[in-house]
Amino acid sequence: MAVNSRPAHPVILGQNQYGKAENRVVRITRDGATHHIKDLNVSVALSGDMDEVHYSGSNANVLPTDTTKNTVYAFAKEHGIESAEQFGIHLARHFVTSQQPIQRARIRIEEYAWERIEAAGSGSGGANEAAHSFVRKGQETRLTQITYDGGTWEVVSGLKDLVVMNSTDSEFWGYVKDKYTTLPEAHDRILATEVSGRWRFNWTDDEQRMPDWEESYEQTRKHMLRAFAETYSLSLQQTLYQMGARIIGHRGEIDEVRFSLPNKHHFLVDLEPFGLKNDNEVYFAADRPYGLIEATVLRNGCEARIPEDLTNL
Amino acid sequence: MAVNSRPAHPVILGQNQYGKAENRVVRITRDGATHHIKDLNVSVALSGDMDEVHYSGSNANVLPTDTTKNTVYAFAKEHGIESAEQFGIHLARHFVTSQQPIQRARIRIEEYAWERIEAAGSGSGGANEAAHSFVRKGQETRLTQITYDGGTWEVVSGLKDLVVMNSTDSEFWGYVKDKYTTLPEAHDRILATEVSGRWRFNWTDDEQRMPDWEESYEQTRKHMLRAFAETYSLSLQQTLYQMGARIIGHRGEIDEVRFSLPNKHHFLVDLEPFGLKNDNEVYFAADRPYGLIEATVLRNGCEARIPEDLTNL
Amino acid sequence: MAVNSRPAHPVILGQNQYGKAENRVVRITRDGATHHIKDLNVSVALSGDMDEVHYSGSNANVLPTDTTKNTVYAFAKEHGIESAEQFGIHLARHFVTSQQPIQRARIRIEEYAWERIEAAGSGSGGANEAAHSFVRKGQETRLTQITYDGGTWEVVSGLKDLVVMNSTDSEFWGYVKDKYTTLPEAHDRILATEVSGRWRFNWTDDEQRMPDWEESYEQTRKHMLRAFAETYSLSLQQTLYQMGARIIGHRGEIDEVRFSLPNKHHFLVDLEPFGLKNDNEVYFAADRPYGLIEATVLRNGCEARIPEDLTNL
Amino acid sequence: MAVNSRPAHPVILGQNQYGKAENRVVRITRDGATHHIKDLNVSVALSGDMDEVHYSGSNANVLPTDTTKNTVYAFAKEHGIESAEQFGIHLARHFVTSQQPIQRARIRIEEYAWERIEAAGSGSGGANEAAHSFVRKGQETRLTQITYDGGTWEVVSGLKDLVVMNSTDSEFWGYVKDKYTTLPEAHDRILATEVSGRWRFNWTDDEQRMPDWEESYEQTRKHMLRAFAETYSLSLQQTLYQMGARIIGHRGEIDEVRFSLPNKHHFLVDLEPFGLKNDNEVYFAADRPYGLIEATVLRNGCEARIPEDLTNL
Repeated sequence: MAVNSRPAHPVILGQNQYGKAENRVVRITRDGATHHIKDLNVSVALSGDMDEVHYSGSNANVLPTDTTKNTVYAFAKEHGIESAEQFGIHLARHFVTSQQPIQRARIRIEEYAWERIEAAGSGSGGANEAAHSFVRKGQETRLTQITYDGGTWEVVSGLKDLVVMNSTDSEFWGYVKDKYTTLPEAHDRILATEVSGRWRFNWTDDEQRMPDWEESYEQTRKHMLRAFAETYSLSLQQTLYQMGARIIGHRGEIDEVRFSLPNKHHFLVDLEPFGLKNDNEVYFAADRPYGLIEATVLRNGCEARIPEDLTNL
Repeated sequence: MAVNSRPAHPVILGQNQYGKAENRVVRITRDGATHHIKDLNVSVALSGDMDEVHYSGSNANVLPTDTTKNTVYAFAKEHGIESAEQFGIHLARHFVTSQQPIQRARIRIEEYAWERIEAAGSGSGGANEAAHSFVRKGQETRLTQITYDGGTWEVVSGLKDLVVMNSTDSEFWGYVKDKYTTLPEAHDRILATEVSGRWRFNWTDDEQRMPDWEESYEQTRKHMLRAFAETYSLSLQQTLYQMGARIIGHRGEIDEVRFSLPNKHHFLVDLEPFGLKNDNEVYFAADRPYGLIEATVLRNGCEARIPEDLTNL
Repeated sequence: MAVNSRPAHPVILGQNQYGKAENRVVRITRDGATHHIKDLNVSVALSGDMDEVHYSGSNANVLPTDTTKNTVYAFAKEHGIESAEQFGIHLARHFVTSQQPIQRARIRIEEYAWERIEAAGSGSGGANEAAHSFVRKGQETRLTQITYDGGTWEVVSGLKDLVVMNSTDSEFWGYVKDKYTTLPEAHDRILATEVSGRWRFNWTDDEQRMPDWEESYEQTRKHMLRAFAETYSLSLQQTLYQMGARIIGHRGEIDEVRFSLPNKHHFLVDLEPFGLKNDNEVYFAADRPYGLIEATVLRNGCEARIPEDLTNL
Repeated sequence: MAVNSRPAHPVILGQNQYGKAENRVVRITRDGATHHIKDLNVSVALSGDMDEVHYSGSNANVLPTDTTKNTVYAFAKEHGIESAEQFGIHLARHFVTSQQPIQRARIRIEEYAWERIEAAGSGSGGANEAAHSFVRKGQETRLTQITYDGGTWEVVSGLKDLVVMNSTDSEFWGYVKDKYTTLPEAHDRILATEVSGRWRFNWTDDEQRMPDWEESYEQTRKHMLRAFAETYSLSLQQTLYQMGARIIGHRGEIDEVRFSLPNKHHFLVDLEPFGLKNDNEVYFAADRPYGLIEATVLRNGCEARIPEDLTNL
């Protein structure tokens, strides 16, 4: 973003962007009686030669946010929605190439997964699967962010709200103790977190072959979950690092991963006042405060580009 | 400043209850390396001879809400958590029978489901299932409410937040038209809702054999989803009725069902301004306002006891 | 609601209602340059002769929920919005009297308050008050529910989300102690709650003179807050009762009040491990669990009609 | 099952931080019968020499998040809470200077405002103001973020959730029209937004005199609101810029402001089908999608340091 350079201004405009946020689009694809569904929440943010609308209110360079909304719906028809990433790429390319004042487009997409309802003999969706009846899967929300400046692409995908727990194989001890430390060491604890993660692809150029975005997501999620499950943990930081390293190690299309992992504390309840022994059986699941562990894991030699803040307070 | 003098009874006390709400208890049961998990949110509400605490502030009849919390955690150890319903029955019986001034206990429980993480070769939880690593299932929250007055039991179970969609086989036409009616008739629409349902058991007496609460939940949920999927719908009311009737028809332990079904509107986007035809492919998923359809379905001859309001505005 | 009496049905329909929920209407009234604003969230629920739509899907008796939405907006123009209560009365009367199959209408309204932005010399809204610039007041949401069956009116108003605190003049001791009791007695504690209250008017008949709904709300809220502030509290139940009794005592148009008061615990932090004395200065504001105190306060001789559940878990 | 062996560095650790988030602290200061209240939500994030805990799980450099929580509560006693900013400065300095491996501390604080309940003759809090009874003000949440690396301070304060509306003096026309544009031009519309703003202070050094943080907040908020009210708006971008420029122009202690302003659309309802004319009186307040306008406003010559994302999708 060019910073405005009017010499007389004691005040100037810095980075700015605008667009329509949270366009909820559901795309049904009919394959005979069998339907397929894509359910997205699409946010558009455009930047470029926009000084004048800030200084004087002239909208001469402004494509209305309402138009960006219309474009999302029209593109769902024109291009279909093969994957959230591919859909975002179509949109970003359109805005940057069709409007001269627009120099950068950032498309953010949330995706909600659905699965078929089991239904006796309803057939064409598969054995015991309804052809056009669905239940929302719940669990994580899939995310992607496409940024395009007319030359280079940046694709960062990820997820949020995936809650996981190891009911053992976690310890916490050997830490620094100062005058405010009262925490007893733990040699068998519950480790639970609500994963918010982002991963950046090394696809940056139209000439490169694109990753298979759907396959990449499924595999990345699988490796992440397995690393969580299989790491005997001495700290949540260690588990986080293993989750990131497993992804980098297995997925050549990804160069950088960042996680924000709240430590969802499960405190062992003291049952001794009632003459009972709590043998790691009964826990109080606490809300606030919570530990918050955040880190980036990188392929060696690659630049870190995902911002520090995945989630805001 | 104190104004606590007892009024000369132009004003009287009506129905009242108190207790500790939202006790979050997680119970781990260890079967060797394989762990099982129950994750509940338990709310206690007690009623009885409580006039004096309201009139004068005397707590002589008041078991502290903190004690009701402690009891939840102690019972998770002493009785385990076989099912939310069984756990609530233990708690309700305890409060009513152990404290003379308490004449009624109502226990409400939310239950969050977990499933095992798939993990290569981790074994004892089953083929490819981790023994003690879990991912929260998402999807619906299971509910139960146990009410006990020392004589009769009432058990109402249910669920909330289960989002379902039929992408076809739904119509809406032939309705009343008045001067404020502008809606065009629809002969192929999306029908989507977020199910909030409650069902009342006819188990009311300690002498009766209890239902298998876990089996009952799984079967009731299955019948409800199938009825949703298999009903060719001319109105959401018709679908609701079929969902309730299917439950009553298949589950002899249940006499009454109530649903609160928001019609989660998916509006067909008008793409004609862009020279495109929308052949039931591209929808806008709206938030507010939404239709709200609520009804009770009963076994013939049975009394309706579930209140009108399952969800508040 | 007549329960369906088809003899052959093993399953029957019970209470049912339908309508459009959460119609967000903002009404601007222009008095020259000075504007006035009413900001409502209106939900319509209609009941009546609706068996057939549930049994067969026939919509012959169904006024579409979309039409009820249109009616809300049209009435905002035709009748204006003098108060939420008056607006709801117009709507309820219309639905019951204009459509033969509709036998009951229930209108629920949330109202959000706005105040004028202070603005130097902007004048006509009052000294230092902007004429047409507003900031949302925050604080409580005002509520009303109008129910009309063609003969009798029931008006229940109230509020939710009003957070109050006494930082002293609260004690809790002299309670029952059983084997699960560990709570120490408190002789100076913080008492905080998030008020959810409803009050029922004794206006039931068109022939009666209506209360001044705006004045009634302001005064009821004031008495409730003063009773909270001025009660030296030995239990939250005592404070609740005083809040209700003060309203009944001062507002002749109200016969019944119900409160749902979460005890928002503020725990004194133990600073002794750090060599510090906590002289009722530093508190931890806890989220869950929380005490929940609920009760109805009635004018002597009046019937209790407000349901037990103001808030759902 | 353990997979914790340190990778041979095809993978490396990037930016990381950890701490306890959302410590809810309420501080009462007693001035005789008159009490004063500070109500904060404090989050601590520490960075430094933390590679080993990620690679091997060694906690030798890790001050437990539980200790950072304890420190928040102990400091509320030891230092009091003069302002959120001052409190954050005490905490950040402590962590960086007392623990050798910690090289950076970032303290984020949310503050909730309270006002006194009006109470007849209760006196010492002021005429008609209760001495120790409060109602939460609602409206915006005040924010601050303190970052300290042992040398330089960065203080960014702000607010969120402040909803404002101009019911006239807003237009939108003269914009770009492409094939997806259908929006009609508007010459009198409602302009409403929910302000999320951050402003960065030019205080960076212990040797400098600190701003009066409380006065600064009150004045900044006032200028921002007045600029919103007093700007005749041709676009929300123009209003945003005026809000930022007014702050920079009036508050010498602030060099940079960033706003994220959702355009909370209020659509004029088409009442013509009902034979009514909507003379800018009746609006539908929409939820999603919404325009989202984001920009930084800077003092000329100053660097932009506030990140693009104030709010996440």
